[in-house]
Order: sequence, then structure tokens, then C-alpha cells
Amino acid sequence: MIGVDWGTSSLRAYRLDAAGTVLERRESDRGILNVTGGDFAAALRDLIGPWLALGERRVLLSGMIGSRQGWVEAPYLPCPAGAAEIGAALVQVPFAGAEVLLVPGLRDFDAAGTPEVMRGEETQIVGVLNGHARACLPGSHSKWAQVEDGRIVAFQTFFSGEAFAALRTATILGRMMNDAPTDPAAFDRGLARAGDPGHLLNHLFGVRTLGLFDRLSADESGSYLSGLLIGHEVGAACPTGAVVHLIGAAPLCALYARALARVGATAMIEEPDAAARGLHRIGAIAPWN
Amino acid sequence: MIGVDWGTSSLRAYRLDAAGTVLERRESDRGILNVTGGDFAAALRDLIGPWLALGERRVLLSGMIGSRQGWVEAPYLPCPAGAAEIGAALVQVPFAGAEVLLVPGLRDFDAAGTPEVMRGEETQIVGVLNGHARACLPGSHSKWAQVEDGRIVAFQTFFSGEAFAALRTATILGRMMNDAPTDPAAFDRGLARAGDPGHLLNHLFGVRTLGLFDRLSADESGSYLSGLLIGHEVGAACPTGAVVHLIGAAPLCALYARALARVGATAMIEEPDAAARGLHRIGAIAPWN
Repeated sequence: MIGVDWGTSSLRAYRLDAAGTVLERRESDRGILNVTGGDFAAALRDLIGPWLALGERRVLLSGMIGSRQGWVEAPYLPCPAGAAEIGAALVQVPFAGAEVLLVPGLRDFDAAGTPEVMRGEETQIVGVLNGHARACLPGSHSKWAQVEDGRIVAFQTFFSGEAFAALRTATILGRMMNDAPTDPAAFDRGLARAGDPGHLLNHLFGVRTLGLFDRLSADESGSYLSGLLIGHEVGAACPTGAVVHLIGAAPLCALYARALARVGATAMIEEPDAAARGLHRIGAIAPWN
Repeated sequence: MIGVDWGTSSLRAYRLDAAGTVLERRESDRGILNVTGGDFAAALRDLIGPWLALGERRVLLSGMIGSRQGWVEAPYLPCPAGAAEIGAALVQVPFAGAEVLLVPGLRDFDAAGTPEVMRGEETQIVGVLNGHARACLPGSHSKWAQVEDGRIVAFQTFFSGEAFAALRTATILGRMMNDAPTDPAAFDRGLARAGDPGHLLNHLFGVRTLGLFDRLSADESGSYLSGLLIGHEVGAACPTGAVVHLIGAAPLCALYARALARVGATAMIEEPDAAARGLHRIGAIAPWN
């Protein structure tokens, strides 16, 4: 089968054997916001055409491709949901020459009734976690999920990644920074600051004053801000002493592992192909024709 | 005398009589970032030339004009500081035809040693407050100050205003909003959300999901986000039951008063010409030649 993790800005396709081994992989920058005229069928054919020519006939999609801005909108599945519930709620997508199914996203409501949503992360989570576990998927909109009996029972989203980008590009704080690579010591200072009493909105102004007082350089400020935001997120999302499975890009997972260590939590960095594993797991129980 | 509140994006000049009454006022958009070639003397002469022609010879400046990006850098004065300390630390600015003095900004350090700074707000505070009081000056960088025996003893800055602008212009949240005027009910919903358990970084994502679930319209989202940020700021900065003197633009003070009422605090909205009153008060004790 073919599994495709199709997000907002990019997509990754995997050709998988019956055991879930990745035989081949292809990537593209044609995320759902970069598909000209919304011709998702053509974009998919461009990417996986060679595999279809080899006889592949089953294609499973996950991610933002199932959102309102995507190809076919797949209604959110309520929590708790695991591979079985997801596999029973796949949505058919019309496509000539192969059977294409779409993984629905999940929704949850917090105690105050505010909705939470994910699209794509559910596939990564069921790809690598079973039984009872706590998962964190860092990114523009970081997800923290509780897994019980192999099902996602609750989750929360943190806007840290996109907030960082906005503060970086559109505020006076960004004008104090350059594009230096991550400075671990400055990142750790941001983490430490996040652990101080006081609100994030107050701590943010410190990025400015520490610069004014020559206690934070242009090389360090971006890493400090990153540590501040990730530190606040981890402090709010992670109970002391928890074990947290990190699923995502290796450099970002390494930063989150640093933040987790600081609050006395244990980080377990999962392998990078969580989406491929989840697509295989769901594909193995999907109601293919 | 002439008092000038000279900020980043605009300046306001007041012609004051000996009792502090504002005889005339003039405004300009030539804040320190909008003065061509840094010719602050020319910008000042353009604005107050007519008053100099009437015989005014004393000019007192406050605000960002005393920053590193301004005309002459005035070193920060440490807290505690009131009108007397400020009046004794004025900085002379060379200017032909009048004596020009500059009000220094204040600095403070929080318990963790992180610096806090203000430039201009100290003048507004000493203009309207005496004795013991708690002040809030809403804005891009909101200031919360403790006044004891007429001196500013400690203060904190919240990045709420500039964070709002960045989230509005540079994130997916902003793309869900239009330029509708403030919707009080949506603002109050944001305030209520700020009072829920959970971190701001999580609450921010709710702006997106409430929109996705048609529980927040494009007309309402901006007001909700504003309520969320102001609610978080007030919740962190203001003890329950406090009396808070609000100094600033009337529409913003009205929003902060709503937020204060929600946490059981009492808002006292001060008159809008706080800067003119502070410039007069400091000018009355300044060591003019």
C-alpha cells in the first residue's frame, strides 16, 4: 500500500510492504496550501504515479488534506479513538486507478467546553504508541495527548511554534535577533526563566530588557525566546516526573527533551517515521474493497 | 513652560501656565522613529516654534526621546523614584533659543534579576498619583506600577498589546478575523476564557477551534483575542480586590476596567492628560538656569 502524510505546507508519501517496512519514500512541497487550483488528484498522481505503475492500488491519506481547505472534508472523530475507531471511520476519495481512503482527524473538548482538534497527529500517535502513554508532538501547534489502552483519550494544543514565528517576525523582539543557530546555553536560560514566577506576557518583555542591558546578544535572543516559549508550554502541559514520548522532527524533539529534563520528566524520542507506521497500522485494518 | 511627551510613533506638546493648566496643545506623528535623519532639534522647533516666538524658554521632554534611539540617551534612574528624584536627574539637551531638559526613564529588577524599564510612563504616573497607589498604563507594553509615598517602588511590563498585534497580523488566528469594532460580548468571552485553568499558549489555539466550530465569527474573533490577552495580563498582574488607577487612552482603559471588574478589582480611570500634569509637576522643581 501507499501511505501519504499530507500537511499544510508539504507532503510525504511512503510505499509500504505488508509488514510496514518503508520500501520507498517521496516528498513534495505541495502541501494543501500549495496545490494550484486545488487539483489534489493531479498533485497525488504526480507524486505516486510511478508506484501506481508498479501495481499499487491502495492509498491511505492523513493530515490536513482532510480539512475544509483540503481535498474532501473528513468529519472529526470524537475521543477516545485508537486505530480501530479511526480505521472504521475512513472517508473515500474519488480517484481514477486506485482506491484512496482518508484518515479523519480527532476532536476533544476541554473541561470548559472549548474544542481541541488534530489532523495527522492521530496517525503518528497510533503508529508508535500502544497501551498507556503520554505523547508530545512539537510543532507550530504542539499536541499533547494521553493514550490509554491504545486509544487517544484527551489532548491539548499549544500555539508555541506559531507564536514564536509571529513574535520573531512581527515584534520589536524579532528586531533584536539574528538567524544564528540554536545556542543551547541561551535556550536553557529561556527555560529557566519560564520556571520563574510570573506570566509569559511579562517574561516576553524580558527578551527586550536583557538585550538593552547587554545580557542577551543578537546571537542568543532567538534561542532564549524559544526556550521561554517551550519552557512555558512544557511547564503547563507536563506533570512533574512524567514520561513523555516525543514524536516529530529530531532537532525540535531534542529541544523539548531538554525542557522536559528541566521539569524532572523523562523524554522518550520516538522514531521519525511515526506517520508511515500509523498509516500502515490503520491501512492494515481498513475496509479496502 | 512647554512639556513634550515624545514617544516612538508620535509626540504631544503642551504649553502650560504656572498652575499647570494646558493653555495650548500640538500633536505630530514625528515620533522618534519618524524623524528624518534624526534631526530632533528641527522636529521640535517645527512643533513648538510658535510658542518660542511667544517667549517660552523652558522645555521639558519625556518618553522614548531619552532612549538610545532618541535625541540624547538619559540613563535609567533606579526605583524607588518620584518627582523629586526625577527632577534631580534631568538631562540637558543642547538647543538654540530655549533650555531643554529631558526626563530619565526608570529601571527596576524583579526577584529573578530581570530588568524592567519605562520611559514616559513615570512622568504620567507622578502626574496623577500621590501617596500609595497601584497604576496600570495599558498599551503595546503595559506597565503595572506600585506607588508608595508618591514614589514608584516597583513595576512590571506585559507584552500584551504588541503580542496582540503580532498574532493579529502574522498568524492563522489573524486570518480568521476582520476589522470589526470591539464586540463587548466577545471580549467578555475572552476574559472568561483567560480565567479558566490552562496556559495562554493553549487558550490561543481555542481562537482557531472556536472559529472552526462556528462558535466565534470573524466579527468576534479579534475582540475575543483581545479579551484573552488582557484577561491573562490582569489575572497575573492584579491581586483580587485591588484598586487600580488606569492611565491611558480612554477606549483601552475602558477594556481594562472591564477586565478588572471581572477579577473583583476596582478601576479608577485617570484623566487623559497625565503626561501634561507630570511634565508640569517635574518642571516645577526642575533646576532651570
